[in-house]
Amino acid sequence: MSSIHSVKRSQSHLAWDNSIPPAIRVPSGSAVSFDCLDASNSQITATSTRTSLASLVFAQLDQVNGPVFVEGANPGDTLRVDVLDVQAADWGWTALIPGFGLLADEFPEPALKIWSLERSSEGADDGYGHAWFDKEKGIRIPLRPFAGEMGVAPGKPGAHSTIPPYATGGNVDTRHLSKDATLYLPVEVEGALFSIGDGHAAQGDGEVCGTAIETPMNVTVRLTVLKDKPYVKTPHFTTHSPHGHDEEFYCTTGVDSDIREATRAAVRHMIAFLVAEHALSRDEAYMLCSVAGDLRMHEVVDMPNYVIGMMLPKSIFVNTDESG
Amino acid sequence: MSSIHSVKRSQSHLAWDNSIPPAIRVPSGSAVSFDCLDASNSQITATSTRTSLASLVFAQLDQVNGPVFVEGANPGDTLRVDVLDVQAADWGWTALIPGFGLLADEFPEPALKIWSLERSSEGADDGYGHAWFDKEKGIRIPLRPFAGEMGVAPGKPGAHSTIPPYATGGNVDTRHLSKDATLYLPVEVEGALFSIGDGHAAQGDGEVCGTAIETPMNVTVRLTVLKDKPYVKTPHFTTHSPHGHDEEFYCTTGVDSDIREATRAAVRHMIAFLVAEHALSRDEAYMLCSVAGDLRMHEVVDMPNYVIGMMLPKSIFVNTDESG
Repeated sequence: MSSIHSVKRSQSHLAWDNSIPPAIRVPSGSAVSFDCLDASNSQITATSTRTSLASLVFAQLDQVNGPVFVEGANPGDTLRVDVLDVQAADWGWTALIPGFGLLADEFPEPALKIWSLERSSEGADDGYGHAWFDKEKGIRIPLRPFAGEMGVAPGKPGAHSTIPPYATGGNVDTRHLSKDATLYLPVEVEGALFSIGDGHAAQGDGEVCGTAIETPMNVTVRLTVLKDKPYVKTPHFTTHSPHGHDEEFYCTTGVDSDIREATRAAVRHMIAFLVAEHALSRDEAYMLCSVAGDLRMHEVVDMPNYVIGMMLPKSIFVNTDESG
Repeated sequence: MSSIHSVKRSQSHLAWDNSIPPAIRVPSGSAVSFDCLDASNSQITATSTRTSLASLVFAQLDQVNGPVFVEGANPGDTLRVDVLDVQAADWGWTALIPGFGLLADEFPEPALKIWSLERSSEGADDGYGHAWFDKEKGIRIPLRPFAGEMGVAPGKPGAHSTIPPYATGGNVDTRHLSKDATLYLPVEVEGALFSIGDGHAAQGDGEVCGTAIETPMNVTVRLTVLKDKPYVKTPHFTTHSPHGHDEEFYCTTGVDSDIREATRAAVRHMIAFLVAEHALSRDEAYMLCSVAGDLRMHEVVDMPNYVIGMMLPKSIFVNTDESG
């Protein structure tokens, strides 16, 4: 069940395209580890400066490693992705890239910050420690690394950019997909063709300036084919509280080029989940979303698509197992 | 400093309008308690049924209690509102009201749920206990009461509906404004003219079906005029983790009829806060928002305006007092 397979740093691709041959084939239930460069594809390094941004080749950005063919996966199935481990490198970067980000028109000039991510014992509360944003001003960020890109190949033929997220995942840039999270993706092609990349050492919901703490990463996930979750039409996930506590959540997402439609989709999918898994009527499910579900903007910068999530605390289900 | 003033149940009004005479006048720093009916203005009671919704008079909804004239408040000042206590009644309601809510087109039929909010010792983790959504199915909601409406009179003359929220507050329907939260509102008229209402016993971010657990409430706030926060142009607040832990946040909001513009405003206001209070450059502040600030959709149903919040955990500020 759990022999570890691996995908190398060189086994990456620059588009979601179901005609890309698999890097490896694994049985359902396999753990797979990936060695990933940062989202600049190594164009930015620990010694880069602001001027490095001027020569960025955009066509080389946001490569993903894979694809992994998961045996037994067929269109209509669900791929369960358990995030077993994520390790960031000892450095990272955050940039303002002209033309990119939620306030691009208000920030026309480039900027680059290089972070030291060496582990410190100070204030480490979840095993990953903190990074100083500005030691003199006393600003320190808790690290919680995750892969910004996790997705499966779309059924639609052709090469689709890895910049926007899709209903099949991809650049969802969802900070909640850290260690111990479980992601569910709708399978559209035989073998699912899972790929991963875009290491983030820390990010807020939204990733508003367009970049997180970007970092090379080693990540290990378990890939399992499920046949009993036909309601998963967009990325769903379970996760723990983003603030280091032990609260757990079930989350549905909406992915759309219109924020309001993405928001509506996130709610619609949570309703479908509650009807399917908790025997609620649609009216009951809609009310439950209103009184207990939190709408969060996971990603608002990977144009043209937004990712909006509805997060429902699992603690509202008493004596009920929702672990999927 | 803290003699308690009070506003009665009958001292309510149905529009934001700076020509409404004050119910009371208080010195800055005063605690004021309010006795508020639910947002239906008592048209729905603990014995109502679905058919009661058909006769709802919309013009009577969302009354607010006040206004309170706070001495010394002038246009350009900030009104600090400390939420000292919120007590819900022993019942509440949640409804699907045709034409209202994020998925109104998909839920054309009315529905009404009456909740028992009697305190139970079971699972009470924050002093407010839980309410059963469905005991048989094991679904229980943690109660965390707050006022959906808190605002000051707009500078613009005339009667403005209490349904949408504004930059001056009002129906912000922000679940995080519960006991121990502190809200900051921009003052636009002499005396600020603060009002409050719309008791919610529990709600998720977004209030997606258009109603929370609506309930009559007794609420006490302290009202203080501040002269040193000129960057507060929309509601800002500090709050604790919505899931009962002790993490604290500083939050800025954007209020706009376009979700994307509301989102951009929330970020823009957080940048202004960080520049003003933490001596960051605008570039630094924008990056900090991206790596540590969470975008949440506090309210998406009080048309035509949305409330989007950026919540920044205070724990990233080491040895820095942000309590305002």
